Amino acid sequence: MPATATDPRPSRPRSWWGWGHADAHPDDAECLALGALLPGTLSRPLPLPRVADLSIGRPGAKPPSSLAHLVTADPEERAAHAMGKAYRDVIRALRGRPGRIPDLVARPAGDQDVADLLDWAGEHAVAVVPFGGGSSVVGGVEYRGDTHRAVLSLDLTAMDRVLEIDVTGRSALIQAGALGPVLERQLRPHGLTLRHFPQSFEFSTLGGWLATRAGGHYATVRTHIDDFVQSLRVVTPAGTSASWRLPASGAGPSPDRLFLGSEGSLGVITEAWMRVQERPRHKASASVAFADFRRALEAVRAIAQSDLAPANCRLLDPGEALLSGASHDGSSVLVLGFESATARVADRLETALDLARAHGGRGGAPTGDRGAGADAAVGAWRSAFLRMPYLRDGLARMGAVVDTFETAATWDRVPALIDAVRAEVGAAARKATGHEATVNCRLTHVYPDGAAPYFTVAVAGRPGDEVQVWDDIKAAATDVLHRHRATITHHHAVGRDHRPAYDRQRPEPFALALRAAKNSLDPHHILNPGVLVD
Amino acid sequence: MPATATDPRPSRPRSWWGWGHADAHPDDAECLALGALLPGTLSRPLPLPRVADLSIGRPGAKPPSSLAHLVTADPEERAAHAMGKAYRDVIRALRGRPGRIPDLVARPAGDQDVADLLDWAGEHAVAVVPFGGGSSVVGGVEYRGDTHRAVLSLDLTAMDRVLEIDVTGRSALIQAGALGPVLERQLRPHGLTLRHFPQSFEFSTLGGWLATRAGGHYATVRTHIDDFVQSLRVVTPAGTSASWRLPASGAGPSPDRLFLGSEGSLGVITEAWMRVQERPRHKASASVAFADFRRALEAVRAIAQSDLAPANCRLLDPGEALLSGASHDGSSVLVLGFESATARVADRLETALDLARAHGGRGGAPTGDRGAGADAAVGAWRSAFLRMPYLRDGLARMGAVVDTFETAATWDRVPALIDAVRAEVGAAARKATGHEATVNCRLTHVYPDGAAPYFTVAVAGRPGDEVQVWDDIKAAATDVLHRHRATITHHHAVGRDHRPAYDRQRPEPFALALRAAKNSLDPHHILNPGVLVD
Repeated sequence: MPATATDPRPSRPRSWWGWGHADAHPDDAECLALGALLPGTLSRPLPLPRVADLSIGRPGAKPPSSLAHLVTADPEERAAHAMGKAYRDVIRALRGRPGRIPDLVARPAGDQDVADLLDWAGEHAVAVVPFGGGSSVVGGVEYRGDTHRAVLSLDLTAMDRVLEIDVTGRSALIQAGALGPVLERQLRPHGLTLRHFPQSFEFSTLGGWLATRAGGHYATVRTHIDDFVQSLRVVTPAGTSASWRLPASGAGPSPDRLFLGSEGSLGVITEAWMRVQERPRHKASASVAFADFRRALEAVRAIAQSDLAPANCRLLDPGEALLSGASHDGSSVLVLGFESATARVADRLETALDLARAHGGRGGAPTGDRGAGADAAVGAWRSAFLRMPYLRDGLARMGAVVDTFETAATWDRVPALIDAVRAEVGAAARKATGHEATVNCRLTHVYPDGAAPYFTVAVAGRPGDEVQVWDDIKAAATDVLHRHRATITHHHAVGRDHRPAYDRQRPEPFALALRAAKNSLDPHHILNPGVLVD
Repeated sequence: MPATATDPRPSRPRSWWGWGHADAHPDDAECLALGALLPGTLSRPLPLPRVADLSIGRPGAKPPSSLAHLVTADPEERAAHAMGKAYRDVIRALRGRPGRIPDLVARPAGDQDVADLLDWAGEHAVAVVPFGGGSSVVGGVEYRGDTHRAVLSLDLTAMDRVLEIDVTGRSALIQAGALGPVLERQLRPHGLTLRHFPQSFEFSTLGGWLATRAGGHYATVRTHIDDFVQSLRVVTPAGTSASWRLPASGAGPSPDRLFLGSEGSLGVITEAWMRVQERPRHKASASVAFADFRRALEAVRAIAQSDLAPANCRLLDPGEALLSGASHDGSSVLVLGFESATARVADRLETALDLARAHGGRGGAPTGDRGAGADAAVGAWRSAFLRMPYLRDGLARMGAVVDTFETAATWDRVPALIDAVRAEVGAAARKATGHEATVNCRLTHVYPDGAAPYFTVAVAGRPGDEVQVWDDIKAAATDVLHRHRATITHHHAVGRDHRPAYDRQRPEPFALALRAAKNSLDPHHILNPGVLVD
């Protein structure tokens, strides 16, 4: 069944230097209020950066006339494609020292355009950086180096259609450049949803999720976008890879799993058949307070090791709970949510609450199925959650240094890991700035064998040296994760910022194999140079 | 926590030519009774083959004295490692024409032994065929070719220990050579189970399951062994790959997913941290009859698209149901089972039964939680299920040709696929033999987006030409699967028998990448030559 056309409404202007919509950024007054939360920040916000102040040179390469209609050298476009949206990116823009500005931005309309652009780039030593929503927080869409004649940012967002829907098999063929809301808008008339809601949902694309193995809506079981992939279409310099639509296959190593997480280094994902679902009809949620974070971890482990499979199972430490308004008395808070399109979920929630209470949890009056209370609480959380990156940018304008990083480890290591991050990353931030830092933690995804902690660090910076401070904090974070055998990323990808740590964690024979695969698919080494392998 | 030692009880003698235990094979009288079910079979069973009748030459290579204690050239050992246990293998043994007998059989005791054997083999152009339980039904453990000086069968079964158990994180470090019962026996004292029960459970190893992406116990969600892997240790000619123990990671393409399904072509899996579970305390099961197979398919789809996640959801067509004693009136039968270590499952079963009845299902009185009825029914099914390969070998002795093959396809294709297999494979079998064939089907695993049908074909053969008949049937099966865009294997792997079909189904750029990976890890091309890539 062909899907309905993309909604043609004009999109709100995006910020070229910071998160999301340009009109959603905190104003100066809000920036000052945010700065007041962190002792030592600036007395007034850094001014908004202007593209006109950047020195943007002439492009180092010119595409042939056959491709000219796909490509622009407009300075605003080039500036907006220079970096992702990590704090490190935002502060560099604010300080007028952004990363390397790409020479050109291309917007292909289909696979053939992508293949033609790759052919041209390969012949002319032009680096190609695939670009979806540009929300990378790991330096995933920024060229660093000088071995290419020019840099082309390959923006996929013109390829944003749901091309086909198989209602019987609950699947949809979706182009990789569709932003979250754009694809959901096309699925909704069919009663279907992909239900992949990362924090970047509005500003990231299906292709970006696939290329980075993004974490999504579900706290358990189907935590990553990987699990929803039925087949992939990937344009590589060596030809187009199209896997078959299959519910499962045991024929050799999974082709799709090689491209999932390849971060644009092996090819450009252009479309995917995705497993979609009916919209949930039953929901129930509750939150439980714990006086003791360690006991809360035990409760979460018990729930993760049951087969209750909550859709949400988010544990906030006291700092996170305070910031999000979930508690004000130093408690940790566990937010539980269940949902189903088929069956009532109240019993599952009740069983999970029993487990939480057995480990010292208090409260937990459930709301739902479809109670107004549940929706209001979820809505409030969601709004705060989506607002956070904007607040980070407001803090950046006040000269604060903010890092968020996430990881995963087996349960035996989780408690000591969290303690060590708090102590060591906090100490590194203090040492780098002379100011007291806040280090908060939440669990975003949980498994029978471990959990994924997410950390937020905030501290007043050294004016002008924010990048160095951030790098010092990152180095400390990387070191503590490595010593505790925790992955350098559970769902933010590797990019360029995590590359040194990734190289240390990856088995060397796998690196050999990946390098060989890269050489065979990208013989001119034009695809996103610097990520994953050289 | 270190695990208990392997039970030292002596093992029952294994059949060198047929399935499983030598003492469990049908005797001549039972063979005659089986043959009577298929018109046109022989009047008396083929005699049991003897190793002494094979012409087994002197080994083409001799290991250095430092490795001699690991290696044997004993003819019985070599014959028992010549082939897997496909019908094609069994009939070749019965007809005195087995595949190439390996020159040597090695039983390494640890990783260093494996590495040393690979080093020696690489220097002397000796092919190395990793061998677990030897239960391959796709030619996965048989050398076919003549480009190597000698063939070494690398039998991992001396590496059969559960080395470590993490009760907190529900994980166990298990050596790859542990057979199903051997590893379960070591987990049981800790109240844990891997719960991976393929039909070959007694005669296959963890390493074999991992190398072939075996399908297991669960009919939904966690259908393959892949989902239970926490980390892998793989000895390759280019070094040992050891991934970190992690509950999940988004750092680049998954290293483990490259080795899962690699069928010994990239390295030798020597151990794995596996996700284990508490033994289930709650069980409930029921079976439902359907007059109409199409409506039964609809019922199964509805259940697969719910989030009920049955552990068992096996649909038997009328022929399968008749053979297994589940029905005698031409009905199709759906066997549903639920289990949990945490919560009662009766409600989930009841909801699934409601869905089945809404699509015309009849009956379905549930048994359980832990009712004696459920256990008896499950036990009876399990016994019959485990007996089937022995019966196949009895039919082979009567000159019958039997093939089982399995696949997976999206729901939109499943009904026509099953019809086409029945018609076209049945016709091919008739054409090849002049006899009427039976073609039965069951669904072994189901997904929201599709299902995995499993087919059994049986027909009286052309005496002496059984291999050709089997090849003709296989060609017809391969062709119909391909035309219906159904995978060449859902869980039996590719081996050598499925290689031509695999090459047609695999995206060519992925083949390039896999070949490059193979060249980098196995530069002398000694590892299981002929599977997956050349």
